[in-house]
Amino acid sequence: MAADAATAEMAAASLCDDLEPATTRTRIRDVLAAGAARAGERVVVGGWVRTGREQGKGSFAFLELSDGSCAAPLQVIVDASVHPLARLTATGTSVLVEGEIKEPPQGTKQNVELKVSRVIEVGEVDAAAYPLPKGKVKIPLETLRDVVHLRSRTNTIGAVARIRHQLAYATHSFFNENGFLYVHTPIITTSDCEGAGEMFQVTTLFSQAEKTEKELKENPAPSESDVMEAKVLAQEKGNAVAQLKAAKASKQDIDAAVAELKKAKENVSRLEERSKLKPGIPHRDDGTVAFENDFFKRQAFLTVSGQLQVETYACALSSVYTFGPTFRAENSHTSRHLAEFWMVEPEIAFANLQDDMNCAEKYVQYLCKWLLDHCREDMEFMVKNFDRSAIERLQLVSSTPFVRISYTKAVELLKNVTGKKFENPVEWGIDLASEHERYLTEEIFKKPVIVYNYPKGIKAFYMRLNDDQKTVAAMDVLVPKVGELVGGSQREERLDVLKQSILFELSEMCFTATLYSFEVKELWILDAGLPLEPYEWYLDLRRFGSVKHSGFGLGFERMILFATGMENIRDVIPFPRYPGRADL
Amino acid sequence: MAADAATAEMAAASLCDDLEPATTRTRIRDVLAAGAARAGERVVVGGWVRTGREQGKGSFAFLELSDGSCAAPLQVIVDASVHPLARLTATGTSVLVEGEIKEPPQGTKQNVELKVSRVIEVGEVDAAAYPLPKGKVKIPLETLRDVVHLRSRTNTIGAVARIRHQLAYATHSFFNENGFLYVHTPIITTSDCEGAGEMFQVTTLFSQAEKTEKELKENPAPSESDVMEAKVLAQEKGNAVAQLKAAKASKQDIDAAVAELKKAKENVSRLEERSKLKPGIPHRDDGTVAFENDFFKRQAFLTVSGQLQVETYACALSSVYTFGPTFRAENSHTSRHLAEFWMVEPEIAFANLQDDMNCAEKYVQYLCKWLLDHCREDMEFMVKNFDRSAIERLQLVSSTPFVRISYTKAVELLKNVTGKKFENPVEWGIDLASEHERYLTEEIFKKPVIVYNYPKGIKAFYMRLNDDQKTVAAMDVLVPKVGELVGGSQREERLDVLKQSILFELSEMCFTATLYSFEVKELWILDAGLPLEPYEWYLDLRRFGSVKHSGFGLGFERMILFATGMENIRDVIPFPRYPGRADL
Repeated sequence: MAADAATAEMAAASLCDDLEPATTRTRIRDVLAAGAARAGERVVVGGWVRTGREQGKGSFAFLELSDGSCAAPLQVIVDASVHPLARLTATGTSVLVEGEIKEPPQGTKQNVELKVSRVIEVGEVDAAAYPLPKGKVKIPLETLRDVVHLRSRTNTIGAVARIRHQLAYATHSFFNENGFLYVHTPIITTSDCEGAGEMFQVTTLFSQAEKTEKELKENPAPSESDVMEAKVLAQEKGNAVAQLKAAKASKQDIDAAVAELKKAKENVSRLEERSKLKPGIPHRDDGTVAFENDFFKRQAFLTVSGQLQVETYACALSSVYTFGPTFRAENSHTSRHLAEFWMVEPEIAFANLQDDMNCAEKYVQYLCKWLLDHCREDMEFMVKNFDRSAIERLQLVSSTPFVRISYTKAVELLKNVTGKKFENPVEWGIDLASEHERYLTEEIFKKPVIVYNYPKGIKAFYMRLNDDQKTVAAMDVLVPKVGELVGGSQREERLDVLKQSILFELSEMCFTATLYSFEVKELWILDAGLPLEPYEWYLDLRRFGSVKHSGFGLGFERMILFATGMENIRDVIPFPRYPGRADL
Repeated sequence: MAADAATAEMAAASLCDDLEPATTRTRIRDVLAAGAARAGERVVVGGWVRTGREQGKGSFAFLELSDGSCAAPLQVIVDASVHPLARLTATGTSVLVEGEIKEPPQGTKQNVELKVSRVIEVGEVDAAAYPLPKGKVKIPLETLRDVVHLRSRTNTIGAVARIRHQLAYATHSFFNENGFLYVHTPIITTSDCEGAGEMFQVTTLFSQAEKTEKELKENPAPSESDVMEAKVLAQEKGNAVAQLKAAKASKQDIDAAVAELKKAKENVSRLEERSKLKPGIPHRDDGTVAFENDFFKRQAFLTVSGQLQVETYACALSSVYTFGPTFRAENSHTSRHLAEFWMVEPEIAFANLQDDMNCAEKYVQYLCKWLLDHCREDMEFMVKNFDRSAIERLQLVSSTPFVRISYTKAVELLKNVTGKKFENPVEWGIDLASEHERYLTEEIFKKPVIVYNYPKGIKAFYMRLNDDQKTVAAMDVLVPKVGELVGGSQREERLDVLKQSILFELSEMCFTATLYSFEVKELWILDAGLPLEPYEWYLDLRRFGSVKHSGFGLGFERMILFATGMENIRDVIPFPRYPGRADL
């Protein structure tokens, strides 16, 4: 067929006359935003009924309709002549309706409303079976976690979803505006630099084992005697060939015998191979699991942070960030921990700790301002229902320069506190507890605070050692309500110093249970020649064109808690994962 | 300490006078973009040397410096009096320099250049050890995959990174502009609706087993006789109590004996508990793995698609999308498959197949136009080095309405093709192969093509059954170079029809090896009462306020292949994962 003819046919085909025409739906947000300016206009609107009630002795119904595009519902009026009202009023009912935008009766507080002329589609609800209660009845957030597939239909989870969206969008806007490239760091990782103990392992060994077991059931592995028998047969075939050769038999006869021998030998190898098939997870001779049989031919884990990997991109493209899911297999049942959560991690080359703080401050302020500018209605909902000071907090953080104070000074300040008794000790060398962090930002300074230069003993191996040899160039941003919101550092760019830190890190892992002095450890580790191999790629960044570089991580859910004033992290992520729980 | 005093102290502390001042670096992109307009200005610039050469008998050096902010390098001139030149010229060397922007000598094609007055920092490179060759030497992309931590320093991977960033950013811009909310669907999932065979499992059983083994080595489990001994002791203590009571002993003596009995009993429970500790993965009595001991108390997997989960949000907030990593444990070694890849999946309520196609067409065109507007330089690099038609392709797709043609018509057209012999059969009921898809878009129409209404037998259970009972409301967007770029469908919103589809799906799984007629299967399945339980939440969306809804998925890496003309998917994701390979 010529392309011309095809094109002609296409012209006809493209009409798609066998398809239902497209829907032209107007978002409720747009109807409400225009207000009276669009009065008189006919629109099609879709959504779910929040509350519905019949009025005027059943002659018409009011429906409060929400389509998720904004916090406020649209008031919709349906006459009984248009549709059976009883089928529309149950909470959760979906409708697609056509109607005219009307100004509300004078003297009412209502925004515009919609007078329905046609009900296009209805998705009914059996109110008795519907897990969410009617209208304004408040369900505990904890209960909603059991209906994770429906809870986004509530005002609260809807508002959180919009705020979460805006924070994600603001994140990409901020970094794009500032010349950062978004890098997708890997989710599956074989770098266990951060300590594999709290990592989830990724495997296909269980499904492989299942497959093998099934296979063996259908077709059992040969026994030793099966294999022996086959070997004897192969031996005989070999002898036959030898005899024929010795007897100078015809080429034809010898070839035939050789072919049989070959077949018998192949049978032996096949049987031997299959006789090794064992049900269950494959193990090595020493009893350990044979991970070399796993999908990646080694152990693989879910990432706990994209930082180390994103450093490779920072050390090539200068300003980069990653924003993705991270994982901890911690057995934490608190309101602040999830097994799966999202992190924003920028990484900047040619940047010291001061640059890092500047970036973190600018970013956090940008997020706060963004919410004030783009999410006012949802923020007001939060203020009304969850946290009276949520908007004030955003205003404070977006407009106040962050206090910057060294860890040493922060400890001094906290030690001198007289009006309050802390549960945790305040002592140089011990990490600040959440209560200390919150006291610094909420009570002492009443502002966001950046604490920097922490003792090296409580921070990660990759942080840059300061000249005092006691502290590292780390920094934490503390904000009211949640305490630590951002944790960052300048990375160690000096090859020798970094190597030392890794060796200490490794020795810590080996000696967890015992008590050796640092000097003994260092000797032991150098003697033992512990493998730096897993870190070699990371060291390469310091071997070849090393640069000062810095970065930080912001826990995305923690930012949402901070912004909304919600109390439990399980309510600010769509599908929370924690010990014993991974619904859907 | 009073808050006032603290604030005063803060004022001093905030000077951060113990910290290195911030760096004020100008991006090379900004220097080059301004061109001669900034000539005479002094700036600090950082980057990595692409090529360096000494000139004028070693009196000065030219460095081509790249900081990743754009494709073109900045030419930097350093006099020997400023810094030892030999330490600067090796490829890969990093420098942070201060200098003056100069117009290039007349008659040269050069953009502006930088005359260096001060070398602030250098990260040297031992050229002999550096894995990347000098300057313009081309390294095979395959070789670069072995140095995944350094390959972002090459022109090609740098350009891909910038294009990838722009496509991600454009994705968020497009959906935000059109009122879609970004929803983070879960990575760890317990919905194995798509068939667990090709899924990675997420587990802590191996690390738990390791911990138990270690623990047992240090503190072996009690033997049966240890437990027996403890039980005998408890029995004796019990007898002692009974005797004391019978003898009406003093309360004090009885209490003491009861306390001893309690201790003995506790010891028994502890020993019994510990005696159950076994090394290795825990198994149930029937020999299967006891996944109830795993982190989530059940089997959990890495998601293969966020669609089913994002539908819950679409059926509440109307227009949503997810953009995140997805996983397939397929043993594929092709240039088109990865074990970990990123997908964009919008989902729209009150939308039929036509709305879905409109959205997909608008989105793909937006991406193409975005690259033409924001990535011209990198696209030109691609045209020069990889695919002469890359820019033309973007222009074509961004400006041409997509042809829309039913699967049935597409098969007719392909059957009538005479000039070309296909390797795969063309027959109604069989899926189109990549060669057919490419022929439709590249040869017959020479435009993007949307094929819709596929036979139900080759599509997923959740796609909406058409009135002909033979096809489903699915659609694929085909584009030149890669074939299928987008796959989508209208979802089945009718509870009964969806239930039927799930039952068929389940029966297919059970009967994979055997051949039953559909009718027999249906009977069998209904009799067997196969559990719909894992699908109940998905059915709930149809039980309560169900709506017509549609969505699609775009493989993000496939979009990058389409845009750049690169041939191998492993080169367009920063850290590729495939069988046997998960570096870093």
